[in-house]
Amino acid sequence: MPDLKRRISAYVGAWPNLALAGPVETIVGGEAAKNDAAHVTQLQKRFVALGLDRHSYVVCVGGGAVLDLVGYAAATTHRGIRHIRIPTTVLAQNDSGVGVKNGINAFGMKNMLGTFVPPHAVINDSVFIDVLPGRDKRAGMSEAVKVALIRDKAFFEWIEEKAEALAIFASEPLEKLIRHCAVLHMRQIAHGGDPFERGSVRPLDFGHWAAHKLEVLSNYELRHGEAVAIGIALDTRYSVLSGLLPAGEELRVCRLLKRLGFGLWHDACDLRDGSGALMLLKGLEEFREHLGGELTITLLKELGTGIEVHTMDAGLIGEALDWLRSEALA
Amino acid sequence: MPDLKRRISAYVGAWPNLALAGPVETIVGGEAAKNDAAHVTQLQKRFVALGLDRHSYVVCVGGGAVLDLVGYAAATTHRGIRHIRIPTTVLAQNDSGVGVKNGINAFGMKNMLGTFVPPHAVINDSVFIDVLPGRDKRAGMSEAVKVALIRDKAFFEWIEEKAEALAIFASEPLEKLIRHCAVLHMRQIAHGGDPFERGSVRPLDFGHWAAHKLEVLSNYELRHGEAVAIGIALDTRYSVLSGLLPAGEELRVCRLLKRLGFGLWHDACDLRDGSGALMLLKGLEEFREHLGGELTITLLKELGTGIEVHTMDAGLIGEALDWLRSEALA
Repeated sequence: MPDLKRRISAYVGAWPNLALAGPVETIVGGEAAKNDAAHVTQLQKRFVALGLDRHSYVVCVGGGAVLDLVGYAAATTHRGIRHIRIPTTVLAQNDSGVGVKNGINAFGMKNMLGTFVPPHAVINDSVFIDVLPGRDKRAGMSEAVKVALIRDKAFFEWIEEKAEALAIFASEPLEKLIRHCAVLHMRQIAHGGDPFERGSVRPLDFGHWAAHKLEVLSNYELRHGEAVAIGIALDTRYSVLSGLLPAGEELRVCRLLKRLGFGLWHDACDLRDGSGALMLLKGLEEFREHLGGELTITLLKELGTGIEVHTMDAGLIGEALDWLRSEALA
Repeated sequence: MPDLKRRISAYVGAWPNLALAGPVETIVGGEAAKNDAAHVTQLQKRFVALGLDRHSYVVCVGGGAVLDLVGYAAATTHRGIRHIRIPTTVLAQNDSGVGVKNGINAFGMKNMLGTFVPPHAVINDSVFIDVLPGRDKRAGMSEAVKVALIRDKAFFEWIEEKAEALAIFASEPLEKLIRHCAVLHMRQIAHGGDPFERGSVRPLDFGHWAAHKLEVLSNYELRHGEAVAIGIALDTRYSVLSGLLPAGEELRVCRLLKRLGFGLWHDACDLRDGSGALMLLKGLEEFREHLGGELTITLLKELGTGIEVHTMDAGLIGEALDWLRSEALA
């Protein structure tokens, strides 16, 4: 956003009870920023050098990855400096930025290090969305499709109805999509009964066991939201193959994702290790391991209603992948 | 403790619902262990390699420093692996180990990085105290004197009564001292209204602004408990000099600390920077900065009753130090 640093300084200067601890700073963003723990140390060091304390506020303006990174550094300096998030992407405004998590990737796995700390505030401003590159406007929409599929059929149908307008990023439906998705996301965290994920259930993570692994396997060529779109398509087809969801519904879901502009295939889906095993499948065990306990995967029993299962069949996943490849490239 | 690793393995092996994720491991301990962030990374990496998840338990047996270090690594891996503390020193059993803090030292300051995460359980076993070196038996007693001075005059008088037996580490009074101190410490955290220190008050940190700085200035020659004894003596004398506490009471406190075997002076107390300023005084600002807001120091208005003040006079601190040096060496 042009001139943002000057405008932030001017804003703070106009309020007698606000003061900047130092100049507004720019740091590296994007998922790559979460792959290097040195960024966390640099931020912690900077916070200390600036004399920040537990009554200070670290305000971060940016996408989900940089919010995760800065949130983690703030949560661990002085055992927790107050943190305000101002998400600038669709994904961060409707999903990752409005939660209670922070963290970085480590040891080859997504979000391996981090904490659960509710931010002091989250401020969603649609002005940031207006100036976003198209790729980032689109990527976050997959999380709206996801939460609609597991929680809210009417929302799914509304997205279908607005798909053409959303695909060209028309402001009015896009703002509505972000707001409703954020509300559903917050509702799950605040009222779902397990905000800090002490159990084994990850109700908001439909399609995510594959998505997290695909991000890593694609060397982060895939944005999180893009990987989620593939993960949704895969697990919807799997829901059909395993007899949970009526056949045909997976076509409807894939059609919507395509109309929104998502590609539903990436060669990372089919990577094999030395013994010829599908590397994507390792995502299942990593997904289980993150929370621990029994593997718990959300699938669909109808559009708008999720269902939890505790096993996934490798053969059926392979079939779902074959289907997805031909469907995606059709 | 002889044979501890084998005995832990045997214990776990005897319970069908327990399993070790890997062999029992020994890691570096002592305050020095908290000065190197690489230890945290090594532990996190090890936890991931062992496949630990949020339903696993990291059980740490050791002194306060290693509990802080391991607790921090557990709190940040998978956004929090469950953690059980088995403190082995007087200090850890009656003070640091029974709290909700973890962390390491960084950027030249104590506990600069860390989180507030209540451990899943704390198990105090007096068997560990029996085999402790004398220096570690003694060091933790200063925290009992501290909490007695700010909260419980009867406890202070009981310590006076048992001072000779405590000085030779007689098991029965030492166990009582640990238990009562731990109870008072827990009570403050659980019922004091601010377990995660969101305000500016550090009621359990009587004598600690100087103690934390002395640990660093002495290059950790002083154990935490030893530095706390000096900090208590200094702030008790300061309480008298500032007119809060009746004269003579500081002699009574110093006499008790000496009878318990504490030295009340270290040359680090008098270190000066290039401009001749007392380096210890920087501890005041660091103490304020950790929580933020207004400087809040606990002093004494009588033995057993603390009082909060918001300024400390550098001149009076200098006088208190001069007094302490002559008193300590008398």
